[in-house]
Amino acid sequence: MAALKTSAEFDRLRVVLVDARNPLNIGAAARAMSNFGFQRLRVVNPYEVAFREAKSAVGAAEVLAQAEEFTSVAEAVADCTLVVGTTGARKRALDLPLYRLEQGARRIRKQLAGGPVALLFGSEKFGLSNAELSHCHWLLRIPTREEHLSMNLGQAVAVCVYELIRDAKTALPETRVRSAPAGEVERITALLMDALRASGYVKPRVAASTEEKVRRLVRRLRIGPGDAELLLGMLRQVVWKVRSDVTE
Amino acid sequence: MAALKTSAEFDRLRVVLVDARNPLNIGAAARAMSNFGFQRLRVVNPYEVAFREAKSAVGAAEVLAQAEEFTSVAEAVADCTLVVGTTGARKRALDLPLYRLEQGARRIRKQLAGGPVALLFGSEKFGLSNAELSHCHWLLRIPTREEHLSMNLGQAVAVCVYELIRDAKTALPETRVRSAPAGEVERITALLMDALRASGYVKPRVAASTEEKVRRLVRRLRIGPGDAELLLGMLRQVVWKVRSDVTE
Repeated sequence: MAALKTSAEFDRLRVVLVDARNPLNIGAAARAMSNFGFQRLRVVNPYEVAFREAKSAVGAAEVLAQAEEFTSVAEAVADCTLVVGTTGARKRALDLPLYRLEQGARRIRKQLAGGPVALLFGSEKFGLSNAELSHCHWLLRIPTREEHLSMNLGQAVAVCVYELIRDAKTALPETRVRSAPAGEVERITALLMDALRASGYVKPRVAASTEEKVRRLVRRLRIGPGDAELLLGMLRQVVWKVRSDVTE
Repeated sequence: MAALKTSAEFDRLRVVLVDARNPLNIGAAARAMSNFGFQRLRVVNPYEVAFREAKSAVGAAEVLAQAEEFTSVAEAVADCTLVVGTTGARKRALDLPLYRLEQGARRIRKQLAGGPVALLFGSEKFGLSNAELSHCHWLLRIPTREEHLSMNLGQAVAVCVYELIRDAKTALPETRVRSAPAGEVERITALLMDALRASGYVKPRVAASTEEKVRRLVRRLRIGPGDAELLLGMLRQVVWKVRSDVTE
């Protein structure tokens, strides 16, 4: 088995397959990643637990063996400073910015100079759900035809990682974009939700959709590492206060 | 089933799968072609005759149903004015020019303005053989890592057709390149071989490799449509002459 040799930048990309149904697609994703020099594969709730034996991972057994498993998107992207969802759709999902693959790849490369980036792919049948999309900062669109938008998962991963290396040498990052890790951003989200719930802002009937809206809002803020700590401190205080008010 | 809507240029591309073993890969190739607006699939000696039922052709049943079957590369590329082979290798195969995918795609788009282009993919296990490569004008290299060159067939097709549409709007062809169809070029090759055999140039022990060399030589000439007729006329005459000399 050839040892993986990847650049520091490439080593910061996490390809995250959410709810993948077919282990052959997971193996194919691993193979394409290895073909183009990426190795950090993460899977969230794969339908088939035996995905690590997928025969389709020709030459990429190592990527598959080292794949990390998670039970939620939040955990899978916790260490990432940028979270990007993939879609074939031309319309914006929710209120997320939407970039064509070649533009999005440029942004991702820039961010990889500074910290880990998660690239999310949804299930074969349904793509990324609104709840899953709410973890994303923006969406990357693979420019498929309007009449046939939906790609095979393994092929979608291949096209994306190809685009990421396509101009890798000519497109060096100009500036580092410093952002807080997604785990901290999620903690901010959770505390803010606590505060909103405890303060009666959240109507129980629409709690789930409110949480998505809050999550997206927090991502749009693009919080820096220092600011995250500050915000967390503030929110902890607010939560403590509104909770103590409720129990009084 | 959505009707295929493709531009005239895209309609001139023939994706040719040579000796494909796995019908799922043929279906996946059809799906990626349809995703990006291509529909002309050709297969040369597929190992599995039932490839037309491949479940992997999600949304691309029409492409698969209309796929044309051939028993030789020569027939499969006969109407094409440019024949391009794909490879992961960094070294030139034979003496063919080798272009990186993004450069090669630019050349293919230019040629598609003038006539049909064949893009050849070899078998999953062995790629394109030297005999198959001898039909090609040049090679297109998908920039995979040295340590893991070999891509899955369906993913390789996906990456290539993606690159072909990537800048399609911004990269309009400047000039039409007029070339003779590959069928005529192959007739020239065959007549030249007849002439060389009959004239004792071809050593029986190395006849096959000589034929490959001759075929490549003829492709390097880039013969125009008018010149092809001229050359055919000349060669017919030569062949008639050397044969009649032999029997005298």
